[in-house]
Amino acid sequence: ALKSQGIDVAVFETSIDFADFKLMDNGLIPAVVQDYRTNEVLMVAYMNEESFRHTLETGKMTYYSRSRQELWCKGDTSGHYQYVKKLMIDCDNDTILAKVRQIGAACHTGNRSCFYRELASRDYVDTNPLTVLTEDYDVIRNR
Amino acid sequence: ALKSQGIDVAVFETSIDFADFKLMDNGLIPAVVQDYRTNEVLMVAYMNEESFRHTLETGKMTYYSRSRQELWCKGDTSGHYQYVKKLMIDCDNDTILAKVRQIGAACHTGNRSCFYRELASRDYVDTNPLTVLTEDYDVIRNR
Repeated sequence: ALKSQGIDVAVFETSIDFADFKLMDNGLIPAVVQDYRTNEVLMVAYMNEESFRHTLETGKMTYYSRSRQELWCKGDTSGHYQYVKKLMIDCDNDTILAKVRQIGAACHTGNRSCFYRELASRDYVDTNPLTVLTEDYDVIRNR
Repeated sequence: ALKSQGIDVAVFETSIDFADFKLMDNGLIPAVVQDYRTNEVLMVAYMNEESFRHTLETGKMTYYSRSRQELWCKGDTSGHYQYVKKLMIDCDNDTILAKVRQIGAACHTGNRSCFYRELASRDYVDTNPLTVLTEDYDVIRNR
């Protein structure tokens, strides 16, 4: 409303309203956060309507903290703000993808990304002469 | 158990058991799926213990379909398999990041990624001479 009067109230305007998002049972929507230059996935957090609006209005990623049950503008405590470059929505409106400029580290551990621990990797397969072709074999077999 | 007897039962072995993951209220854990070469985020889906085990055993991303309430080995219908390259876990054990080799399109719409629609973008700010410096201003002001 203010915007239509020429008053600049928001950094961003969304093409789809929050009301049209498909929320989880707890009323939140997950947001995957990605470095806008390297595409590194930094973290996943959750938004309610207020945090989504705050994100649009300030240009800084703002979540709903499930543990503290409050609005959480990331960086307000640590200085590690995430400046929004682009927000995407997926095909069924139930997940947000945010491309951001990350100041400092996204993770509270000091790691740039929260995903710094490996669960499993195919590297050993790729370097084992006995199994190096298994992936190609899988692809062909599945055709 | 079979593995300790030298019988190869799994493509992957996990460094953290599913029992140690922090699940959502519905017993699932979200998995962010990323192209292992370009880092493009392709989709987000959810796993239960059975789908996680199936993923490790087959090397193909397998989810729990919340809508169909059943195991969902992606590609079994479409041929668009996702071969696991690497699985990561985040700092608080509640989100999986999968780096995959995607066959065909990840999205049922035929788009390579489910995130093909833009909600909002800062591009207009970056090209507007009146506001081109607002981002730098924001960063400095927040220090």
